[in-house]
Amino acid sequence: DLAARVFVQDLMQSAQLSVTVDAAGNIIGRREGTASDLPALMLGSHIDSVPHGGNFDGPVGSLGAIEVAHSLADHDIALRHPIEVAVFQNEEGGKTGSRAMSGELDLAELDLVTHSGHSIGDGIGILGGDPRRLETARKQKGDIAAYLELHVEQGGLLEAERIDIGVVEGIVGIKRWTVSISGFANHAGTTPMTDRRDALLAAARFVETVNRVVTSIDGRQVGTVGQLEVSPGAPNVIPGHVTLSLEIRDLDMEKIDFVFETIRTDTDALAKATGVSFEFEQFYVSRAAPTDERIRSSIDDAAAQLDLSSLRMPSGAGHDAQSIALLAPIGMIFIPSVGGISHSPEEFSQPQDVTNGANVLLHTLVELDAAFD
Amino acid sequence: DLAARVFVQDLMQSAQLSVTVDAAGNIIGRREGTASDLPALMLGSHIDSVPHGGNFDGPVGSLGAIEVAHSLADHDIALRHPIEVAVFQNEEGGKTGSRAMSGELDLAELDLVTHSGHSIGDGIGILGGDPRRLETARKQKGDIAAYLELHVEQGGLLEAERIDIGVVEGIVGIKRWTVSISGFANHAGTTPMTDRRDALLAAARFVETVNRVVTSIDGRQVGTVGQLEVSPGAPNVIPGHVTLSLEIRDLDMEKIDFVFETIRTDTDALAKATGVSFEFEQFYVSRAAPTDERIRSSIDDAAAQLDLSSLRMPSGAGHDAQSIALLAPIGMIFIPSVGGISHSPEEFSQPQDVTNGANVLLHTLVELDAAFD
Repeated sequence: DLAARVFVQDLMQSAQLSVTVDAAGNIIGRREGTASDLPALMLGSHIDSVPHGGNFDGPVGSLGAIEVAHSLADHDIALRHPIEVAVFQNEEGGKTGSRAMSGELDLAELDLVTHSGHSIGDGIGILGGDPRRLETARKQKGDIAAYLELHVEQGGLLEAERIDIGVVEGIVGIKRWTVSISGFANHAGTTPMTDRRDALLAAARFVETVNRVVTSIDGRQVGTVGQLEVSPGAPNVIPGHVTLSLEIRDLDMEKIDFVFETIRTDTDALAKATGVSFEFEQFYVSRAAPTDERIRSSIDDAAAQLDLSSLRMPSGAGHDAQSIALLAPIGMIFIPSVGGISHSPEEFSQPQDVTNGANVLLHTLVELDAAFD
Repeated sequence: DLAARVFVQDLMQSAQLSVTVDAAGNIIGRREGTASDLPALMLGSHIDSVPHGGNFDGPVGSLGAIEVAHSLADHDIALRHPIEVAVFQNEEGGKTGSRAMSGELDLAELDLVTHSGHSIGDGIGILGGDPRRLETARKQKGDIAAYLELHVEQGGLLEAERIDIGVVEGIVGIKRWTVSISGFANHAGTTPMTDRRDALLAAARFVETVNRVVTSIDGRQVGTVGQLEVSPGAPNVIPGHVTLSLEIRDLDMEKIDFVFETIRTDTDALAKATGVSFEFEQFYVSRAAPTDERIRSSIDDAAAQLDLSSLRMPSGAGHDAQSIALLAPIGMIFIPSVGGISHSPEEFSQPQDVTNGANVLLHTLVELDAAFD
């Protein structure tokens, strides 16, 4: 990450951006505008990666934004707004950099020790920020005219539909619950089938219920049981307890609640039939972040000007844009991910698609410069 | 265990049994018979326990058998056959003592280190046996006229039906498989429901299939999925792989195979529908051990003489009798377990039921002494 940050700052300087690192460790390259007192149009993404991740999630948007600045400089194009290219730090570990900018970062998070062996606070220092001066990295509403992020889709829709550009309608909201199922552990040899209170049988029916409810309601919501632990967990013991995770995502937080309540209602009958009890504990919420309709239209226009096909779609994954949505209207541009693969060394996007994305980013920026104050 | 073994040997001596410990560490108390050259009628069980187990699983049959010998001595009853009371060592850890007697113990098992911190071989030495002379503990067909074991049911049937005595039809056979389900791990936010190859959804349908198949076929077979592990196991990742255990038990090994094949056939359609693949690997077989019909009838008669109700039933759990079934006709007598609870400190059987069991054991022994050569 440290080496990549030096590389990126060199690229920014080549693109005639003036480079600073804020107190949160975000790298910001700025190009002044012609009109006085207009807030900046911000282009951003990240360059950090999950362990054993790929080279496209983050870098496409970060290097694409620098390339846009390079083009403006090469062609001596003067925009009204200042342009800021933000490379946010630690997106994958919890959007630390962009959440510091939006004021969402909880100071208690600074003490969390990550897989790196460093705390989040120490990490900010190592990256050139200053955790004691975090407030100085914070921006207010009005400080940013609009925010644009180019990113790989991380899903397979664009490739499957042979669409060049995804116009993101918003970043989905997420709710997660821990579901505890209590039956009765007993001897698998001496307990007849009819006398069992098998927590895993109930869990199996719950997993099926989640799939049935999520797929039977119109819309693009997704529901996932990704974690499941069985206790006591021996081949010859009827499971007495199961703990599992339930995650529901949608652009509409009320839709998430509706899906959850439908699942929970169906669970009552299931619990009765299997002789178990269910407990739900919500442990995570990420609010949905809709994109701005004017920006979506500008992206549509930019794609059309470039003879590229485009499709409105939600972002199922989280992005730095979600943080900046608290400060400014946001827009996101997706390009196809080959095979929909992400967070893997096999993550790949075709060079032509990366080029398309950077071009749409540039054209959208120019249109927003005219449209926004 | 060591203290209990001293206590039990003292009880045997009080019952006028001559006590030896064989090379496998089994304690054997012998009372001679009146007819020359008849093989022994053996009564047996164990006194070892699972960790945090109860005081009835094993001791009821072991102390019941010593009490029978005590009664014969007290009333100076001379039987034709010699009587041997066997307290087998390490039943719970794999029927080590009784399997040494039947010749099933694999010498490689002696090197296995158990939770005690000792190997099975060292344990035999610690208990007073000699692992280098194991062959001397082995018996052949014809060495035992018949084998009788009194035991707690470890299930709730007798108590629920208010029956005094269970006449065991046999000890169920067991087969166990490891089932590996391979789908494709993917991002829970960016992968639409229709594009998923969710190994846990397939596993859930498999658990439901096991329950449906096992309960839809006539008979008393049981099928259990007791272990299940999900990979990668994160709330925001669609499970790519699940490993689970399948166990099927029945008195009839062919029935076990039929149930398994029915499940496996149903799995094909399930695999296709969810886009996953299934692999089955059998890792454990325990052959069913039917009891001898003459002995069952003798137990029926003994119960009737004592004005006790009785019921024919399978044993879902394994017992030392299973090993001795390779050498001699076997019979087993069950008494009620309160609440069907076993392998728990709450394991309990009423004193009157323990007394009933010992009385049925005595009366059956006397009947067998007359009937068998």
